[in-house]
Amino acid sequence: MIGVGVIGFGWLGQAHSRSLLRIPTLFPERADTRLVVCADPLPERREDAVRSFGFERATDDWRAVIDAPDVDAVWVAAPNMLHVELVEAAAAAGKPVFCEKPVGGTPEQTARAEAAARDVISGVGYNYRWAPLVQYARRLIADGVLGEITNYRGRFFSMYGSDPLGVLSWRFLVDEGGYGVTSDLMSHSVDLAHFLLGPITRVVGTTATFIPERPLPVAAGTHYGRGAPDDPKGAVTNEDYAGMLCEFASGVRGTFEASRSIVGPESQMAFEVYGTKGALGWNLETLNELQVYLVEDELHTGYRTVFGGDRFPYHGHFVPGSANGIGFEDLVVIEDYEFCRAVAEERPFVPGFGEALQWVRVQEALLRSAESGRWEDVR
Amino acid sequence: MIGVGVIGFGWLGQAHSRSLLRIPTLFPERADTRLVVCADPLPERREDAVRSFGFERATDDWRAVIDAPDVDAVWVAAPNMLHVELVEAAAAAGKPVFCEKPVGGTPEQTARAEAAARDVISGVGYNYRWAPLVQYARRLIADGVLGEITNYRGRFFSMYGSDPLGVLSWRFLVDEGGYGVTSDLMSHSVDLAHFLLGPITRVVGTTATFIPERPLPVAAGTHYGRGAPDDPKGAVTNEDYAGMLCEFASGVRGTFEASRSIVGPESQMAFEVYGTKGALGWNLETLNELQVYLVEDELHTGYRTVFGGDRFPYHGHFVPGSANGIGFEDLVVIEDYEFCRAVAEERPFVPGFGEALQWVRVQEALLRSAESGRWEDVR
Amino acid sequence: MIGVGVIGFGWLGQAHSRSLLRIPTLFPERADTRLVVCADPLPERREDAVRSFGFERATDDWRAVIDAPDVDAVWVAAPNMLHVELVEAAAAAGKPVFCEKPVGGTPEQTARAEAAARDVISGVGYNYRWAPLVQYARRLIADGVLGEITNYRGRFFSMYGSDPLGVLSWRFLVDEGGYGVTSDLMSHSVDLAHFLLGPITRVVGTTATFIPERPLPVAAGTHYGRGAPDDPKGAVTNEDYAGMLCEFASGVRGTFEASRSIVGPESQMAFEVYGTKGALGWNLETLNELQVYLVEDELHTGYRTVFGGDRFPYHGHFVPGSANGIGFEDLVVIEDYEFCRAVAEERPFVPGFGEALQWVRVQEALLRSAESGRWEDVR
Amino acid sequence: MIGVGVIGFGWLGQAHSRSLLRIPTLFPERADTRLVVCADPLPERREDAVRSFGFERATDDWRAVIDAPDVDAVWVAAPNMLHVELVEAAAAAGKPVFCEKPVGGTPEQTARAEAAARDVISGVGYNYRWAPLVQYARRLIADGVLGEITNYRGRFFSMYGSDPLGVLSWRFLVDEGGYGVTSDLMSHSVDLAHFLLGPITRVVGTTATFIPERPLPVAAGTHYGRGAPDDPKGAVTNEDYAGMLCEFASGVRGTFEASRSIVGPESQMAFEVYGTKGALGWNLETLNELQVYLVEDELHTGYRTVFGGDRFPYHGHFVPGSANGIGFEDLVVIEDYEFCRAVAEERPFVPGFGEALQWVRVQEALLRSAESGRWEDVR
Ligand SMILES: NC(=O)C1=CN([C@@H]2O[C@H](COP(=O)(O)OP(=O)(O)OC[C@H]3O[C@@H](n4cnc5c(N)ncnc54)[C@H](O)[C@@H]3O)[C@@H](O)[C@H]2O)C=CC1
Ligand SMILES: NC(=O)C1=CN([C@@H]2O[C@H](COP(=O)(O)OP(=O)(O)OC[C@H]3O[C@@H](n4cnc5c(N)ncnc54)[C@H](O)[C@@H]3O)[C@@H](O)[C@H]2O)C=CC1
Ligand SMILES: NC(=O)C1=CN([C@@H]2O[C@H](COP(=O)(O)OP(=O)(O)OC[C@H]3O[C@@H](n4cnc5c(N)ncnc54)[C@H](O)[C@@H]3O)[C@@H](O)[C@H]2O)C=CC1
Ligand SMILES: NC(=O)C1=CN([C@@H]2O[C@H](COP(=O)(O)OP(=O)(O)OC[C@H]3O[C@@H](n4cnc5c(N)ncnc54)[C@H](O)[C@@H]3O)[C@@H](O)[C@H]2O)C=CC1
Repeated sequence: MIGVGVIGFGWLGQAHSRSLLRIPTLFPERADTRLVVCADPLPERREDAVRSFGFERATDDWRAVIDAPDVDAVWVAAPNMLHVELVEAAAAAGKPVFCEKPVGGTPEQTARAEAAARDVISGVGYNYRWAPLVQYARRLIADGVLGEITNYRGRFFSMYGSDPLGVLSWRFLVDEGGYGVTSDLMSHSVDLAHFLLGPITRVVGTTATFIPERPLPVAAGTHYGRGAPDDPKGAVTNEDYAGMLCEFASGVRGTFEASRSIVGPESQMAFEVYGTKGALGWNLETLNELQVYLVEDELHTGYRTVFGGDRFPYHGHFVPGSANGIGFEDLVVIEDYEFCRAVAEERPFVPGFGEALQWVRVQEALLRSAESGRWEDVR
Repeated sequence: MIGVGVIGFGWLGQAHSRSLLRIPTLFPERADTRLVVCADPLPERREDAVRSFGFERATDDWRAVIDAPDVDAVWVAAPNMLHVELVEAAAAAGKPVFCEKPVGGTPEQTARAEAAARDVISGVGYNYRWAPLVQYARRLIADGVLGEITNYRGRFFSMYGSDPLGVLSWRFLVDEGGYGVTSDLMSHSVDLAHFLLGPITRVVGTTATFIPERPLPVAAGTHYGRGAPDDPKGAVTNEDYAGMLCEFASGVRGTFEASRSIVGPESQMAFEVYGTKGALGWNLETLNELQVYLVEDELHTGYRTVFGGDRFPYHGHFVPGSANGIGFEDLVVIEDYEFCRAVAEERPFVPGFGEALQWVRVQEALLRSAESGRWEDVR
Repeated sequence: MIGVGVIGFGWLGQAHSRSLLRIPTLFPERADTRLVVCADPLPERREDAVRSFGFERATDDWRAVIDAPDVDAVWVAAPNMLHVELVEAAAAAGKPVFCEKPVGGTPEQTARAEAAARDVISGVGYNYRWAPLVQYARRLIADGVLGEITNYRGRFFSMYGSDPLGVLSWRFLVDEGGYGVTSDLMSHSVDLAHFLLGPITRVVGTTATFIPERPLPVAAGTHYGRGAPDDPKGAVTNEDYAGMLCEFASGVRGTFEASRSIVGPESQMAFEVYGTKGALGWNLETLNELQVYLVEDELHTGYRTVFGGDRFPYHGHFVPGSANGIGFEDLVVIEDYEFCRAVAEERPFVPGFGEALQWVRVQEALLRSAESGRWEDVR
Repeated sequence: MIGVGVIGFGWLGQAHSRSLLRIPTLFPERADTRLVVCADPLPERREDAVRSFGFERATDDWRAVIDAPDVDAVWVAAPNMLHVELVEAAAAAGKPVFCEKPVGGTPEQTARAEAAARDVISGVGYNYRWAPLVQYARRLIADGVLGEITNYRGRFFSMYGSDPLGVLSWRFLVDEGGYGVTSDLMSHSVDLAHFLLGPITRVVGTTATFIPERPLPVAAGTHYGRGAPDDPKGAVTNEDYAGMLCEFASGVRGTFEASRSIVGPESQMAFEVYGTKGALGWNLETLNELQVYLVEDELHTGYRTVFGGDRFPYHGHFVPGSANGIGFEDLVVIEDYEFCRAVAEERPFVPGFGEALQWVRVQEALLRSAESGRWEDVR
């Protein structure tokens, strides 16, 4: 029975708490947890944690979570710029720590967090790795079903910042949220590529801010809040868009793009992988579908749309049959299940902070390249 | 705090129990429940109910559920042919009862259940009604956005019975499961049409059994079990396929088909509605997408793919933003939330047994028509 | 060198003439033709035939086409109710005759035409048979790749009559155009089913007219002309919609629908075929794509989208490579090429009037059923 | 009546000849042409030109085409490295010249051709500009329907070189075909971007050759020929793949990729354009479909699939109605129609060699960047 402390009780803090509650009913080999304490500055969220989620208690002081003797593992779901301090404290207390991506708001912070937490089990919230069809995609690639991989195309296009009246939340401020879309979205996209194909060695890239100022938020809100045209405005201090070309250690050629202010794609966290014998494609917007193309002898070759189902990893824990879909949050359940198993069995978890570091090394190279205007090695 | 009893702890019994546990963490206006007692003949399922789901106790005698003074409402998720007896008992005990569709295995049984339960709050598991985009579709139709409706096309095509080696579970036996694909799948399809467009008045139809015999099951299993070619076989005694043409009270012309033994569509519970100003389409396989066509002045008319998101009914309770999907079981959560609210507020719930009856009246007409070879009125 | 006469120089008359001109540049084994004479009551069309298409001459009297000694074969592309008279005359003159579908406006007329033309080579414009991917679909079915066929779903949904202000052209008048959507659209749909699966033996069906009156046309126009709200109106005297269930001689269960007044589908001439080992789907709106599902051992089964290309029948005559598409009229080119080859080699052509008759036998049964309200045998 | 000479009678030489023959039957305001003379070294092609296409004569000497007094305009459809010489000769003879893209095999050649031909009407075969839905896309962009454009994504992925046994045709040899996929495919992709959004100012890019050697061709063949594993091989001397990031003069951020050796996409010449109010997407593989997303007040926003039809530019010349598709070669017909009109009216044609030059300026910058490893200005 793992005593759980959660820091930050917004979207992801709640999602993890809900997920931990669901694990025993979904996984026979469950890793049981107790929701011990939750920290958040907002009183209504603390109240909700206790009343609706069954936390034993709540606090406005995150240190009280980390120090609590009945807390065995810590989930960090506070804004990015707080990550490193929280992780350092949890690691200092010798507690396993699961931190939401990107583990810090800047590459430096992620590196600090990684260095601090080498002696504890760490986990990072790259939840899309756990999508059943992404897991299966990785298996197909590893088994050589696509032949030798030649090309990779990753992107994460979201509209959450596309409305110029979307408020200036912490996500748009380098001092509060750290870097912008690279940390927030491209991190996911590159992490998936690492998961599927291994390390990236060189990149050339660029960034842009399309909406330079936004209405100041009138009150604490999620990043989907909206201001009025006449509201006072503040400057956006991190990037809306990033694009890059890259090479993988394996020789694969890749392109990545991410935007939080694009119009059209709503949550298009997508990739395509191409090899000498076939290709794969996946998109978060249609997470229960995998596109598969294979070179075959028959004339009727073409991309097939493979629907998720209980024959794929994890899927059957949620619903039997084929083409009965799972949802976004179910990926968090899988992630938390696997992290709890690692904690229970005292073994490392992947993706941990090593994987978080792997991404920020790419991010650093991208940001250096955006400055230098040339290819930069990933160090 | 509603004391809950669940009878039958297979796929749907577990799905409802899990859903009841999740409600408080998803709905601020939650209706709190306590999982009191669960009945199932299989000991490992009873054990699981207590250990993993937190039921206070479990029993192999369903009467112990209905009679328990700390049970305030009963969920029936046992095989179809048991429904009527259980419902009658729950109603006799004056307890609200939620019964999985189709409420009995034959139209006669559903009629008996409906008659018995008029004085209690009843609910039926037509869960697809609760899909956010189906809810929204209904609103568009009701608001006249599609103009006057002219045509409806409904179908439920599943592959669960397409493998001739799929075992002869209760679903394939008229004495154990009642009617076949009409009860199991077409019920959902016609119920959705009732939800969207109102009553059907006349039908002409046909049924067929494509796989006349199947391997006998060696042990109790779900309907996804598979036998071997040399296993002893038994006769399938209900229908694999049904098709019908119909007229709605409103004059709309409809077609329906259902098959459990088709190859290709994996869980294609789909409909298209056509009106004088637009059209809609939805498919369970892609439950987070709604197809919408509207007559417009611009040249660029066409079907739009609308992704689910927090701007649609219920969706935001599960995940914020747009195109972050929900899953199959989330529909059960919504259904149970709404049923619990009705119980808590002591008001009728829709779809209740009245709606279950409405379908079996259509089913009766379809089965009569399959005999008579002619159009039959829905009585 | 076949001397060609064309009667009716509207959409299809022109399409055939253009197609005949293109054959030599596309097919090395071409069957050469000379455009000799064209008949149409509209002077501007006659002029266009000579000036732009290179007809040697034009006339307002169709008899002059049939009687011309330098005309070796006749194409009939006049309105439906003229078909039978023209066909009888051509057959009496001993000339091969290609008639646009449905060969007459009523089943009786088609039967008369068929009886009259047994001694000449006849062809009918069921052009969708010739789509490369439809040809390939037929091959897959014939080769048993889909296993034993169990279900067929055909439809032709068009919006050409969906606008209530669309003028009352000959197509909406039983006396001028014969039957409505059954003759115009369902004919294509059922003909394709015959092509793919063989004869239909029993049907039950219904028809409806959703738009009972329409603006009178002010001048001769195509069926895409549009009136004004205050224009004088006349009654539509044939059907907008038809639906039917059927059984094929092989035991396959089928459904068909056709509508000319539906909103949404623009030219959805589509079918799905299901067998015990796989399924196929095709839609005229995406004529360069075939949907193929096959039962396979791999987990990654699903519908594949097969793009047209030069590896499929006829396609490479139009464009090399894969996924470089062909267009609607290219199907007419293939049809005319094959008809000319049959004429040149003096052998029967399929689909000929025998196939036209096969459809109207189904149509008769459908219309009888719409009267009788019961299943009717195809005689 | 324009006397036409065609040089090179392979795929595109035949396509243009066929197209010129079709124009009068499709366009009432036609520009009439006479097929005078065709040049090709292959005797069977010359014979075909005369016998099947109706050329008055054919020759193995291209000079005889340009010098012929009855030739008023010249079409160049020979391999790329011959373009410049032919264009120079045609221009010297004062004749309008239509040259297939990319007008020469290297940027230097294109620049030479452009300089030589400033005094004649020139045209270049960027045929995808003429797709009805691309034309319409441009109108939507120009009309501001998408708001201010922020992002562009272009690509051309083809499998024509994906088979390692595909023969070493001229396309794979820098001395015979000039540059590889940049000239062959990316040219189209960037040209479309120029057409839609205007000039590109800076790029950073990379190229790669994935299949370094290929079987030597045994005889002249198209680029779809295939060798055997043991055939003698030769080195591929130009690039299979190119990727680039760029900025447009307007500030738009773009990415482009092209590959001729990818597996999966068969003819994916595709783009997506994103603006502050909407987005568009188009793909040659589905040339009769346009994806359109618009910010709207309704909740039911989403990408709509707009099918081609006679309400879009040029489409109705080929087929009436909606969703009755046109084919690849029909784009060549439109292009030739417009070029002939320009010749007949003695006015400049766009895209002419100026537009061809605009692309090679980008190509030069891309190739410089692939060398320098940094951003390069388009000069
Ligand atoms: N893996 C994924 O798919 C996603 C990950 N995330 C990550 O999750 C983290 C949280 O993001 P959201 O939940 O979307 O943000 P949110 O704004 O919804 O929640 C953040 C919460 O942290 C609380 N907080 C602020 N200061 C705090 C402090 N000093 N101590 C304790 N709590 C504090 C806030 O009151 C708020 O309740 C971020 O790192 C983000 O990058 C967010 C969305 C999706
Ligand atoms: N709404 C929906 O989407 C779905 C509804 N259903 C419905 O749910 C019901 C149950 O189906 P599944 O859960 O799929 O079947 P299942 O076979 O997975 O579960 C049935 C359970 O009932 C138990 N049972 C048998 N006899 C019993 C008795 N006398 N007392 C108590 N329990 C008994 C069995 O041991 C088993 O655990 C059916 O009525 C079915 O039509 C099933 C699947 C989907
Ligand atoms: N296979 C296919 O996909 C299609 C087939 N059709 C068929 O083609 C036939 C013609 O249809 P459309 O070309 O669409 O019609 P349309 O209205 O465009 O052309 C009919 C032509 O016939 C002429 N005509 C009328 N009376 C005549 C007479 N006595 N003698 C000679 N010509 C006369 C009219 O002036 C007109 O030019 C119909 O039978 C229709 O069912 C039509 C559209 C598509
Ligand atoms: N716009 C488009 O979509 C496309 C454009 N093209 C372009 O068209 C041009 C031709 O390509 P394809 O037709 O595919 O090649 P192809 O190989 O099919 O045809 C080239 C023809 O040129 C002939 N030829 C070679 N040397 C000649 C000479 N000295 N004089 C006269 N003819 C000569 C060859 O015998 C052959 O018949 C190229 O520039 C290519 O880039 C090609 C394919 C598509």
